[in-house]
Amino acid sequence: MNIREEAQKMKQDAPLLAASSIEKRNAALRAIREALLSGKEQVFEANREDLAAAAENQIAPSIQKRLKFDEGKLADVISGIDQLLTLPDPIGRTTLARRLDEGLSLFRVSVPIGVIGVIFEARPDALVQISALCVKSGNCAILKGGKETANTNRVLFTLIRDAALRAGLPQGCLLQAELHNEIDELLSCDRDVDLLIPRGSNAFVQYIMNHTKIPVMGHADGVCHIYVDRAADPEMAISVILDAKTQYPAACNAVETVLIDRSIAPDFLPKLVCSLREAGVKLHGTKEVSGLLAGCTDEIARGASVALMEEADFHTEYLEPELSLKLVDGVREAVSHINYYGSHHTDSILTSDDEAADYFLQMVDSAGVYRNCSTRFADGFRYGFGAEVGISTGKLHARGPVGLEGLVTYKYRLIGEGHVVGDYAAGRRSFHFEDL
Amino acid sequence: MNIREEAQKMKQDAPLLAASSIEKRNAALRAIREALLSGKEQVFEANREDLAAAAENQIAPSIQKRLKFDEGKLADVISGIDQLLTLPDPIGRTTLARRLDEGLSLFRVSVPIGVIGVIFEARPDALVQISALCVKSGNCAILKGGKETANTNRVLFTLIRDAALRAGLPQGCLLQAELHNEIDELLSCDRDVDLLIPRGSNAFVQYIMNHTKIPVMGHADGVCHIYVDRAADPEMAISVILDAKTQYPAACNAVETVLIDRSIAPDFLPKLVCSLREAGVKLHGTKEVSGLLAGCTDEIARGASVALMEEADFHTEYLEPELSLKLVDGVREAVSHINYYGSHHTDSILTSDDEAADYFLQMVDSAGVYRNCSTRFADGFRYGFGAEVGISTGKLHARGPVGLEGLVTYKYRLIGEGHVVGDYAAGRRSFHFEDL
Repeated sequence: MNIREEAQKMKQDAPLLAASSIEKRNAALRAIREALLSGKEQVFEANREDLAAAAENQIAPSIQKRLKFDEGKLADVISGIDQLLTLPDPIGRTTLARRLDEGLSLFRVSVPIGVIGVIFEARPDALVQISALCVKSGNCAILKGGKETANTNRVLFTLIRDAALRAGLPQGCLLQAELHNEIDELLSCDRDVDLLIPRGSNAFVQYIMNHTKIPVMGHADGVCHIYVDRAADPEMAISVILDAKTQYPAACNAVETVLIDRSIAPDFLPKLVCSLREAGVKLHGTKEVSGLLAGCTDEIARGASVALMEEADFHTEYLEPELSLKLVDGVREAVSHINYYGSHHTDSILTSDDEAADYFLQMVDSAGVYRNCSTRFADGFRYGFGAEVGISTGKLHARGPVGLEGLVTYKYRLIGEGHVVGDYAAGRRSFHFEDL
Repeated sequence: MNIREEAQKMKQDAPLLAASSIEKRNAALRAIREALLSGKEQVFEANREDLAAAAENQIAPSIQKRLKFDEGKLADVISGIDQLLTLPDPIGRTTLARRLDEGLSLFRVSVPIGVIGVIFEARPDALVQISALCVKSGNCAILKGGKETANTNRVLFTLIRDAALRAGLPQGCLLQAELHNEIDELLSCDRDVDLLIPRGSNAFVQYIMNHTKIPVMGHADGVCHIYVDRAADPEMAISVILDAKTQYPAACNAVETVLIDRSIAPDFLPKLVCSLREAGVKLHGTKEVSGLLAGCTDEIARGASVALMEEADFHTEYLEPELSLKLVDGVREAVSHINYYGSHHTDSILTSDDEAADYFLQMVDSAGVYRNCSTRFADGFRYGFGAEVGISTGKLHARGPVGLEGLVTYKYRLIGEGHVVGDYAAGRRSFHFEDL
């Protein structure tokens, strides 16, 4: 059976899953939890095969680390499921209750989105997280993971799906796509799939967006900024910038550009550059930055090599230990730069000046606007969402890390006693709005 | 200056408008209100020109009615503005406040979407409603109205924009596009325009969706259903169906298909058909419907002409006094039909049976699920939203009539004291989530 036919069947099962009680969905999560624990040796065995193949194919060590699913990763996903179990039911919440007129009442109730397709990188823990979020939120999910962990995914998926079905969720709650050509098939299911969440490279997400009529939620770019204000604590600034750039440079929430207030640059920039060089970060910067370093007294900073940047280069997302540097005249110029060159993901100001901070937090048009902390905090787990299906840089529906709340929509229920619009149009009746 | 350059300037002004106080935005609404009242003769004069041109161009009388802007329409838009003035500020609301750890706090705050393009039909009152909603919600708006009311729109827009600027809103808050080719220019502004709301024919909305990278909110189809359950009150059913079909057949929330429980059809269908014939409604139906009518005792019903339908015809949105009829075996078959053939806009069940109603309201996957009332209630004003920018049949972001709440998004503010992710990754610190 192909994806298109499976998606049609899922669409029919979606209202059944949406109607299932929170008790049943939580029971399914508990069953999944148990299945993962009791089936772990099977999973580890499959993962060893994937890792052996990856080593054979000379896949980069940094990626091999992501492919691994061991006791530590298992403990992480189990703790994610435990956190989800404690969270309230995201569906069936009444977010508006209004009497429109005698005998005519309107209710807005949260409901699952329906059928969601998630295409994710080769990370077995992502498969567990995404499945668990979809089960909790009553959404049917089509999962397509990276091929490098195909064996691990297959075992994990079978454990998860079997547990969900045993707990009484409908047949169509979960589906795994395994072949790469099934992605294109999935993209064509705009009648039956309500939302696509692609994760991966910018080019991949753009490809998805350009080849489907299904709404896409995702982030295309993560060009994050840190602005070091004149009132920043220099030590804190260096510590935060190092964390944001070097703790995990391949992450979308890693910093790509550091903007420094011109008035503190002669003192601060050489110090920062020494720390960055020590951490092995490659530097890019404007002529002004490179000139300032060339003329400074610190020998190490003076010796730093800075690749010269054109204005347009400030759109660059390195995803590597590389960083763009620029001097600005205060918070206003910093905000203009960020709103123009940024990708509206996450941007941070380092300052002890409340006024500058307020201006920054108000005026920067990004999903995350931070003060005195690392951009790397932009993450569903760190926000306390239990897990995330991805991070959205779009402004509609969900913005930033997307957890349970981003997986629901709502519908309006209107209950009358034979009410017709003609009566209101003719003035025989009129509306009397009253929130209940 | 072209739309693209204007949109760039608006994008820069958008954070300023977003930062404006509710007092300033309400003052702008009051200034707009006064400007419309004191400038009304100018508006009426321009409208008379548009109406004269429409009559000359032999535009259909039903459309000419929509073009009109008179004392009655003025009173309607003024009352809409008055209602908006009483509504709370939709932006700056904190919808999540959580301490992640000592000294690290997360806040989710509602903010305007930014720059919104609205392309709407020739209805001068729509221009006022949309401008007022955008001003209240702090969004910059690019407005392109139907050309048949170009004179009226120009006068209205000038009054509104001048009043908004006098009240201190930024220059880029409102822009009018007047030329048809400016629509294509607008579609290309994906860097600066955050959302497009097209209103109009299905084909037009589809065109917009297929020719832009900007997110589009709108409805492509309005195939609304009424299901007459075996436990329906026949008189109420006929009254509701007549209202839903004939009160304004060109509206997207008019009913297109009536499904009737097979067990009551021999009695109910002839009665319904008599009323529909009397109201001048053209009938389409299955063989079974036409056979049942041909064999019934009622002479008028027996004489009804029913155009035979194929299954695929049930996707049809007539937007005319025409109706599809089909018999079903109870609420389950009705729901399957609606979820498959409908457009997820608005669907109503007529019944006194709570169990059937609950099943219908739960299982129908539409923006509006109604019991014992006309589908025509699907409308922002009737829901008490003051006004609407449109009705969304998409499930993401906003669903159903879109008022102020559909025009906002949110951002996350994270306030730390130099917090870095490395400390948490290394186990030196750990998260302690606590909602504030």
